[in-house]
Amino acid sequence: MTSSVIRPTSRNSGTPAAHALLDVLIGWGVRQVFCCPGSTEAAFLDAVVERSAELDIVLTTHESIAVAMADGAARITGRPQVAYLHTNVGMANGVAHLTAAQLANSPVLVLNGLKSTALQGRDGFTTVPYPRDMIRQHVKWARQVTSAGTLPSDVARALRTSAAEPTGPTWIGLPQDVMDSTAPVEAAPTAVVPAAVPQNRPAVEAVTTAARLLAEATRPVLVAGGDVARHGATETLVTLAEHLGATVLGEDRRGFQRTAFATSHPRFAGPYASNHPAVRDADLLFFVGCRMFTEFEAPAENELPTRASTIHAHVDAGEVGRLYPVDVGLVGHTRAVLDDLLAALPTPAQVPANATPLRTNATRSTVPTDATRSTDSTPSGPVAAFPGHVGLAPIVAALVDGLGDDTTVVLDATTATPALLAALPQRRPDQVLLSSSGSLGWGTGAALGVRLAQPGHPVVAVLGDGSFQFGIQALWTAVHYRIAVTFIVLNNGSYSAVGSALHRFDGAARRTGRWPGTDIGGPRIAEIAAGFGVPATRVETPAELSAALRAVRDTAGPTLVEVLTGPNHDRTEP
Amino acid sequence: MTSSVIRPTSRNSGTPAAHALLDVLIGWGVRQVFCCPGSTEAAFLDAVVERSAELDIVLTTHESIAVAMADGAARITGRPQVAYLHTNVGMANGVAHLTAAQLANSPVLVLNGLKSTALQGRDGFTTVPYPRDMIRQHVKWARQVTSAGTLPSDVARALRTSAAEPTGPTWIGLPQDVMDSTAPVEAAPTAVVPAAVPQNRPAVEAVTTAARLLAEATRPVLVAGGDVARHGATETLVTLAEHLGATVLGEDRRGFQRTAFATSHPRFAGPYASNHPAVRDADLLFFVGCRMFTEFEAPAENELPTRASTIHAHVDAGEVGRLYPVDVGLVGHTRAVLDDLLAALPTPAQVPANATPLRTNATRSTVPTDATRSTDSTPSGPVAAFPGHVGLAPIVAALVDGLGDDTTVVLDATTATPALLAALPQRRPDQVLLSSSGSLGWGTGAALGVRLAQPGHPVVAVLGDGSFQFGIQALWTAVHYRIAVTFIVLNNGSYSAVGSALHRFDGAARRTGRWPGTDIGGPRIAEIAAGFGVPATRVETPAELSAALRAVRDTAGPTLVEVLTGPNHDRTEP
Repeated sequence: MTSSVIRPTSRNSGTPAAHALLDVLIGWGVRQVFCCPGSTEAAFLDAVVERSAELDIVLTTHESIAVAMADGAARITGRPQVAYLHTNVGMANGVAHLTAAQLANSPVLVLNGLKSTALQGRDGFTTVPYPRDMIRQHVKWARQVTSAGTLPSDVARALRTSAAEPTGPTWIGLPQDVMDSTAPVEAAPTAVVPAAVPQNRPAVEAVTTAARLLAEATRPVLVAGGDVARHGATETLVTLAEHLGATVLGEDRRGFQRTAFATSHPRFAGPYASNHPAVRDADLLFFVGCRMFTEFEAPAENELPTRASTIHAHVDAGEVGRLYPVDVGLVGHTRAVLDDLLAALPTPAQVPANATPLRTNATRSTVPTDATRSTDSTPSGPVAAFPGHVGLAPIVAALVDGLGDDTTVVLDATTATPALLAALPQRRPDQVLLSSSGSLGWGTGAALGVRLAQPGHPVVAVLGDGSFQFGIQALWTAVHYRIAVTFIVLNNGSYSAVGSALHRFDGAARRTGRWPGTDIGGPRIAEIAAGFGVPATRVETPAELSAALRAVRDTAGPTLVEVLTGPNHDRTEP
Repeated sequence: MTSSVIRPTSRNSGTPAAHALLDVLIGWGVRQVFCCPGSTEAAFLDAVVERSAELDIVLTTHESIAVAMADGAARITGRPQVAYLHTNVGMANGVAHLTAAQLANSPVLVLNGLKSTALQGRDGFTTVPYPRDMIRQHVKWARQVTSAGTLPSDVARALRTSAAEPTGPTWIGLPQDVMDSTAPVEAAPTAVVPAAVPQNRPAVEAVTTAARLLAEATRPVLVAGGDVARHGATETLVTLAEHLGATVLGEDRRGFQRTAFATSHPRFAGPYASNHPAVRDADLLFFVGCRMFTEFEAPAENELPTRASTIHAHVDAGEVGRLYPVDVGLVGHTRAVLDDLLAALPTPAQVPANATPLRTNATRSTVPTDATRSTDSTPSGPVAAFPGHVGLAPIVAALVDGLGDDTTVVLDATTATPALLAALPQRRPDQVLLSSSGSLGWGTGAALGVRLAQPGHPVVAVLGDGSFQFGIQALWTAVHYRIAVTFIVLNNGSYSAVGSALHRFDGAARRTGRWPGTDIGGPRIAEIAAGFGVPATRVETPAELSAALRAVRDTAGPTLVEVLTGPNHDRTEP
């Protein structure tokens, strides 16, 4: 273990604390900090001036964008990403999208510039009495640094905590007096760098039992959650599924965060739902790397078919058996779980001959989805009377057709999500990314973070017009840094989730045809984007959309296509 | 005391709980609810369909706008205003501007639609374990309603708590199961309606002592805070100032919320600052209806001149003596304090003959302000090396010249604020409104709320380009409801407060001329506004600004003028 001391430079330039902060971040491989600064962040910014070759800021014009960018980049890299927010008001603005990072287990470190310790005790400008209270339930660990001397170890601990499973956000408050301090700072010991983060494996007896249940099952169903992708376990799960002859489902729609299993694989049969035929028919359900469940409303009856045995594998012991008892719990890193299971299974020859035969891809078309279930009670349900996404199918088809097969798609389009999830190509892990937080506007910033983490790889954000307005400031960052994301905005001029809810409520709105809180029409989104400097077009037909998608392919910077999908714009091809 | 029972209607239409909620709100004079709804708010919205003649929603496309609008309207009316936010993510988005409402003592009730109680206990979609933790320190009272039966009294108590001095925000969590409940609900007792909110008066002995000190003082200075305006005490303060022959200062700049004293009055001599000549020279300082103080940084030395006696009048006992001991504390409603003092003073003939003579208005020009103090350490300080608001003075002059004398101005332009505060006409209480929260973007929504509360009265929002981006979604609401606010955006293409902080830091940024985190140039703001449907122009010179202001006067809906004030746009008149 080595350590060194960071001393003040001869002229005021950064400070020892700011340079020690940079040292820790750089030591953890952080090369960019997503930032919306204020005056309290001067010492940090000044230190960056001198070391921008090692670490630079990515400026955003709203804190929500900084957090969403960090989340997007964290999902792709799996490594800690950093958002630097300004005082209590900037932190408040970052909280909504931090819930997305939290639910996606994104290792996002929020650095929060705070007013000096003395001013905090005097109710000064941009202070709150309890800054930690605002963020505590959204992070794994939250600490306000109290002296420059502990700053390196505090930040290193936050990074380590973010990177340890279950990975997730952390928060460090950085008072201005600490960051401005000119006293020498001892550097953090090298022992805290990331290589040392350990992984957990499931208990041997649990693996033995689970392997026996899997081998004995005649109609096993595997439910693949986001952690399968996050832990690089997709290929292992494919091996297991083929080995068992099992049907594979995706995580339930409200919990879906990222593609974990190729939807084109012949064993894949759509998202998990308690009324899915494969679920009703199963004698074993193996939930792997997903939550059980992310519910939109409390279920009227038990979500689990009572006949089937259940196995739940999750890296977080707290998730196993959280809402429903399971027969076997496997607590461990998803790849370790699957490796151990494969090793414990009988050889392929010993798999029961009566295992479910391989299904064809066509099976998928018979699977009920949120978009078609007649009993659906979520905002994705039928909106016959409410004028929402009328005629969306041809637009979705043109969209799918116009995207490259390998394009990464970031989705933030509330009521269009089920149709898009069912149709978009998902051939590899993380090809489609989603927030399960319900915080509108996440997608614009997240797409930028994804693109920065995947240079040269096409990234498209598909947004609703409501989400576009929430995340609009990302356009500035996209233009400023020439980040090549194509924003596709499905503009139906409405909060159709609200309209759907009123429709389900079946009261005065439906009786009178008045839908308060739903009409957000008016903005010419392409024109707004052009004002930010984003080349943009507005289209009205699937053919125009196809042409627009061809035109923007391989553009060096951001582009935007506004697609009118509202009730007055449901034109289909002649 | 009467009460009645609200029963379910024959067909599902609102619910008894939603109608009981509307009854309480309407009983308190609430006619509009600023709202950014989601699916959880269906019962409320459906009830509004049937009763929109009594109460309607004002839709916003981001929760921050709903909160800022409620704050703006609350400042003008002095009565409770309501923002209805959606689940944890919507609440998070509203928090930053709620700090503005809190600091301004705005009686804003935040209604927060939450997922059903059962789903909260299951970590369901858009739930957090501790919703109250996110908001607790920003409100006077926070309660999640646990049954429909107590909903009316819970909401009535929140309204009463908001309306009681010191007025301020409250929060009510409304779980969906409570709002959807079809059980009959007993209406709230009429006793909780607003007429009964009492006011406090200062202790008689304190009044006697304060009156004696004021009468004996030879160089008294009165510091008039926002509560002078909020409590309708401006005329009384004028009487007192003229009676005493006292100099009047405004609240310190960081605490300034609203015009409380006419800057054109001959006794007015600028904002309070510890180095103000009148303060240094005073033998008595009377702080009335202001905080002592709202500090930008902890003071190096005591802010109070040691020679002077001090009196502090505030409606909140907690504010008196909070940071500095005072000789006399007067705890009471500001008008009651001033009425009592005037009554306790010797008759005018008995005022000492050596009282300070009336100063002329010209005195103001000799008063140091934040914009000119050479020792200034706030972001409003000199930015000689950082290319910020170069050549702002002629623009400010054209702006002042182009506004009607009675126009209400909502300011949200960080570094331009001191110059604007010094120059803008402030002839009546509340003519200039400001947030002291530091949360950018407050001004767009606040201006809309102010205008709705002052129909027919001209309202202008003066914004920085940074603030414009933060509060951009207000343009949608302005267009949708044709709210006649003129937005004037001073576009210097930079976060100049950050630049000023780096300049003061005096390190690598200043040495190298690189200013990270400051360049937000690029957006063509007038074009963006036009995309939202706001008629907009971009101007570059004071003459063009004057012409643009003439052109937009008396326009029926919103308009926007973008003024280029950056380093490349410092052209002055030839």
